[in-house]
Amino acid sequence: MEMLVTYLVPLAGLLALLYAFVRTRWISRQDPGTPEMQQIAAAIAEGARAFLRREYRVLSIFVIVVAILLAIFNARQPGSSWLIALSFVVGAVCSATAGFIGMTVATRANVRTTNAARTGLGPALNVAFSGGLVMGLSVVGLGLLGLSLLFLFYSEVLAWDYLKVINVISGFSLGASSIALFARVGGGIYTKAADVGADLAGKVYEGIPEDDPRNPATIADNVGDNVGDVAGMGADLFESYVGSIIGTIVLGASFVPVFQQMSGVHPLAGVLLPMILAGAGIVVSIIGAFFVKVKEGGNPQKALNQGEFGAAFVMAVLAYFIIQWMLPEAWTAESPLIPFTNYTATGVYWAVLIGLAAGVLIGLITEYYTSTHTKPTLLIARQSVTGAATNIIAGLSVGMLSTGLPALVLALGIIGAYAAAGLYGIAIAALGMLSVTGIQLAVDAYGPISDNAGGIAEMAHLPPEVRERTDKLDAVGNTTAAIGKGFAIGSAALTALALFAAYMQQAHVPTIDVSQPNILAGVLLGAVLPFVFSALAMSAVGRAASDMIKEVGRQFREIPGLREGKARAEYARCVDISTKAAIREMVLPGLLAVSAPVIVGLIDKNMLGGLLAGVTVSGVLLAIFQANAGGAWDNAKKRIEAGLEIDGVHYGKGSDAHKAAVVGDTVGDPLKDTSGPSLNILIKLIAVVALVIAPLLA
Amino acid sequence: MEMLVTYLVPLAGLLALLYAFVRTRWISRQDPGTPEMQQIAAAIAEGARAFLRREYRVLSIFVIVVAILLAIFNARQPGSSWLIALSFVVGAVCSATAGFIGMTVATRANVRTTNAARTGLGPALNVAFSGGLVMGLSVVGLGLLGLSLLFLFYSEVLAWDYLKVINVISGFSLGASSIALFARVGGGIYTKAADVGADLAGKVYEGIPEDDPRNPATIADNVGDNVGDVAGMGADLFESYVGSIIGTIVLGASFVPVFQQMSGVHPLAGVLLPMILAGAGIVVSIIGAFFVKVKEGGNPQKALNQGEFGAAFVMAVLAYFIIQWMLPEAWTAESPLIPFTNYTATGVYWAVLIGLAAGVLIGLITEYYTSTHTKPTLLIARQSVTGAATNIIAGLSVGMLSTGLPALVLALGIIGAYAAAGLYGIAIAALGMLSVTGIQLAVDAYGPISDNAGGIAEMAHLPPEVRERTDKLDAVGNTTAAIGKGFAIGSAALTALALFAAYMQQAHVPTIDVSQPNILAGVLLGAVLPFVFSALAMSAVGRAASDMIKEVGRQFREIPGLREGKARAEYARCVDISTKAAIREMVLPGLLAVSAPVIVGLIDKNMLGGLLAGVTVSGVLLAIFQANAGGAWDNAKKRIEAGLEIDGVHYGKGSDAHKAAVVGDTVGDPLKDTSGPSLNILIKLIAVVALVIAPLLA
Repeated sequence: MEMLVTYLVPLAGLLALLYAFVRTRWISRQDPGTPEMQQIAAAIAEGARAFLRREYRVLSIFVIVVAILLAIFNARQPGSSWLIALSFVVGAVCSATAGFIGMTVATRANVRTTNAARTGLGPALNVAFSGGLVMGLSVVGLGLLGLSLLFLFYSEVLAWDYLKVINVISGFSLGASSIALFARVGGGIYTKAADVGADLAGKVYEGIPEDDPRNPATIADNVGDNVGDVAGMGADLFESYVGSIIGTIVLGASFVPVFQQMSGVHPLAGVLLPMILAGAGIVVSIIGAFFVKVKEGGNPQKALNQGEFGAAFVMAVLAYFIIQWMLPEAWTAESPLIPFTNYTATGVYWAVLIGLAAGVLIGLITEYYTSTHTKPTLLIARQSVTGAATNIIAGLSVGMLSTGLPALVLALGIIGAYAAAGLYGIAIAALGMLSVTGIQLAVDAYGPISDNAGGIAEMAHLPPEVRERTDKLDAVGNTTAAIGKGFAIGSAALTALALFAAYMQQAHVPTIDVSQPNILAGVLLGAVLPFVFSALAMSAVGRAASDMIKEVGRQFREIPGLREGKARAEYARCVDISTKAAIREMVLPGLLAVSAPVIVGLIDKNMLGGLLAGVTVSGVLLAIFQANAGGAWDNAKKRIEAGLEIDGVHYGKGSDAHKAAVVGDTVGDPLKDTSGPSLNILIKLIAVVALVIAPLLA
Repeated sequence: MEMLVTYLVPLAGLLALLYAFVRTRWISRQDPGTPEMQQIAAAIAEGARAFLRREYRVLSIFVIVVAILLAIFNARQPGSSWLIALSFVVGAVCSATAGFIGMTVATRANVRTTNAARTGLGPALNVAFSGGLVMGLSVVGLGLLGLSLLFLFYSEVLAWDYLKVINVISGFSLGASSIALFARVGGGIYTKAADVGADLAGKVYEGIPEDDPRNPATIADNVGDNVGDVAGMGADLFESYVGSIIGTIVLGASFVPVFQQMSGVHPLAGVLLPMILAGAGIVVSIIGAFFVKVKEGGNPQKALNQGEFGAAFVMAVLAYFIIQWMLPEAWTAESPLIPFTNYTATGVYWAVLIGLAAGVLIGLITEYYTSTHTKPTLLIARQSVTGAATNIIAGLSVGMLSTGLPALVLALGIIGAYAAAGLYGIAIAALGMLSVTGIQLAVDAYGPISDNAGGIAEMAHLPPEVRERTDKLDAVGNTTAAIGKGFAIGSAALTALALFAAYMQQAHVPTIDVSQPNILAGVLLGAVLPFVFSALAMSAVGRAASDMIKEVGRQFREIPGLREGKARAEYARCVDISTKAAIREMVLPGLLAVSAPVIVGLIDKNMLGGLLAGVTVSGVLLAIFQANAGGAWDNAKKRIEAGLEIDGVHYGKGSDAHKAAVVGDTVGDPLKDTSGPSLNILIKLIAVVALVIAPLLA
């Protein structure tokens, strides 16, 4: 009977894709507004498509080369198979397809959200959220469908030799992670080069706001929202989702010999459980999405919370029954690595709850450090009064301080999940956080769609209340999105750990003792990677933004009438600058991430173990630091814009304090949207590369 | 005969102090200049003394409390002794005394340097370098004298039971580290609150330069150079110096049973070697100092290089003979922790050379990333043209990128030194870097003395060529100082490792396997400490600088005639703000550093092992990032001031690019002078605390 359930898993993936299709049809039927709005939206959609085409062309070369290398190396290894190359290609294609669908629908939803915002907040929320939901469901649908079909296919081909199946299927995760890293870095560089460029160009040359149609970089800026914040984030979560499922599968394989001896238990129960939980999560996400509807006068914040928290709660309850039904009450499993031996179904369920609790806690801490109405952002706003330098010092300090509590929560979560169910517990805790990714990603992706809608409203000269509504829409999702970020960081750390343990098993590395000099050297080299990687991403944004500013200056000098709004800016040139910069600059950090573990692993497989520990710890901390510093600077600026009073003096938009806060906001942009989120992928990509080459090193 | 040599060690310490006294007398005999200059210098000296008095009053409470706790806990432990409390107090007192002497002489040397600069560059260099040399010799003299006398005393009292001696003597390092951390953090907050405050206040309120006598914060700024950059740095290097000697002593103790079986070798040769190398280093430093003399028209850069590199070279040669003479050609020693068993005297010498090479390499890399005439600072200068935001992004990116190569050098150094002589090799590599601390610190401390001399020249309205000469003097030492920084960071990492290994031996922790969840949690908690610690230090500077700016504003509003230079500013008020802020704000980070390892150790001694690994790796990387980002911002500003031309447009002092670069420089100040250098101490303090409580946890 469990086998039947296994065949239901791909059906859950299919269901997600079907429902995404239904919502896409609904979005397309909405009114796209005035011809001017449609023209602007078409320019954005065209720019976004052009970027993805070029990005995917470069990535396809990478995918082909890596696939050939994988096939050659694994075909020669006893026990391995060239099927790993197939998994890799399928993973890459699924990830790219999810990004493409999400971005295409987002560029349709943006202008229809603008148009809906002309009538009210509720209709606008419905369109924007639907756009986000299509992205979310495409990600989980393609992820689970691809993974489960490959699993069933390999099981038949390899005659249910589960160890071989698990080895080749890790290629799927490698494909997803590679695409994710390039998409996050490339998209992040694109969006922030355009954003910083549009913002500063307007200020340096003309005192023109970034969304003003006279600003030549404004279309590039809006394209950036779609390729970075939608497609890039989609690839990111695709990778997290798939990685957490595969990490659990690999560790669950160690239960097979035990379960084979027990009656009433499927031998592969530990391997199938993560897929079945993910399938259930899809159904729960779709149901949750029905609750996100606002009638006129309703509270949109409440609607989003109902959807996301409702889904998480239902999932927490459902997981209990699935785990109790699939796993035996108690069993003993020995592993050379793990002193943990006595497992229980209840322990596994506790691990899921610990994962959920850790994710929510990290989200709430994130919210505290970055929200407009809390102490840390007020502190940054106050320090802006004495200039940009004190604003920057305060932001750096808030960002660094904000790593403390999440590290404590993660440390306790790791110890707790392990105490509950060993390494399998750590993996399943990560999966618990990500099981309702479908609806989480919908809430995340709805932000940039609303942002885009606001940009279109501005460019199409719509009445100010339209922009106000889209701004409110954008703000409403922030708390919910903060929780999502907590899940992303928490699950990345736990998934990396699970993959790390899987690497040790597969490479036959018994311990990773940091008191040994080669291991410590590995930890040091691993810990420095996120620093170097962030530096490369940030300097790429800086360089591309400078090019953008110069191009805007050139247009203002050379196009007569542009300044007065009589001539049209050459938007395409700016789109081109961002595109070229993103494609060019994503290569070096990407190759660094892929090659570092291979080189170190070939020198010393134990040192690679140290490298994995170093990159995980330092990557998680730098990711939290960058995300929170960026978020706090952003909201400190918003706080001043809302009006700040200190010792009877009022500081608002246009004050010197505001100018200082804008500097902080601009500095935070590449931190929170380019280098920071890429680190989550980096740590997992390095772990997956290690896992894939593990049989070679063993 | 070796015993005789042992008694020579304290004599070397005494020699350093005697020669420091001779140089102090010589400085005091120099002409202190005009009555106005003397008045300014008196105000600076008075402020510095007042701060140290208050700082030491607070610290004496801390020292007494910790000493009592140490005495109570250790008296009850079998094999331990209350003598550890005595060591702790002696270490704290020696460190504080060295800081006090250095600062007192620096506040005499500053005004005499100014006066000498009225006649020429050569005489000014001689005075400033002499001031630095007194600091350097006081540190090594008191360090070695205190340590070696305690060693001889304990040896007699404890009847040459070397294990007990080594246990109680680690308290000396704890005393030195505690004082160092508070002095670095307190002094760092003082100097940067005053510096940032004076800088911004002048700009915000009056457009008055920071050294202008009308700026009420200017005396506080100059006091800061003495209490932060002189006394704070002295305590810092005292701690490094003592820590590296004690780390080697502890590891050398494992050779005693082997050497007892061999003829012609002193049983304690491994323990005495570090002290004898340090004693030789003192003699070499004094000889080196004689080479730092410039005649008129001579090259001061060459003189400093001759002194420092000459001393390092002579030391490298001398170490060969000392090691070959003291250690047997080859021996075998087993340890439960260390797979390394076959030692040779040549291997130990190789470790010294590897340490020196790693230090020089890290110094040269530092120089590349931060010097005015290299690519990274040019990049930051260019990015300043588009505003403060791009300047900050570029600086953060340069700082992060600059961690890559030093991490690689350190990783190779660790592996190399271990391959040469096991853990003892790692410890002795650190000692090799620090053996000529006497002259290194002289070069370091001469910078702030020259800086102060420039401030006095400005305030006393001396002709501009005097200021030009002192500025040149300040710039000349930069390369040499960068090498010193490389040694400080490299030796901190290696010393922490040695102490870390010593902790494992003493606490009976056999392995630190990061694949175990409690260890990994420990690594995560350790890695987050430098982030939180830096955040606390930086926000303290931000807050205190804000207070300073407000006070300056009040004085300009309320003191009639101040603006026109007719009335005298109330300098003492600003001195008081910095003093109070520094004293208040140093407490929390200091207690965090001391209590974290105790709490984690009491929970789980293995987790504490993980914490030590985490804090070392993350601390070293964050320290390099902060130091280099700060240095690069500083010199990018100087580069623009020297005149920068891009695409035919000239950017110089007063341009918008310069204003943006000033923001970067100000942001970099607390990074490079408060939080960054404190991290070197933090990682060692935590390791020493662990080592001291190790017998309790065993």
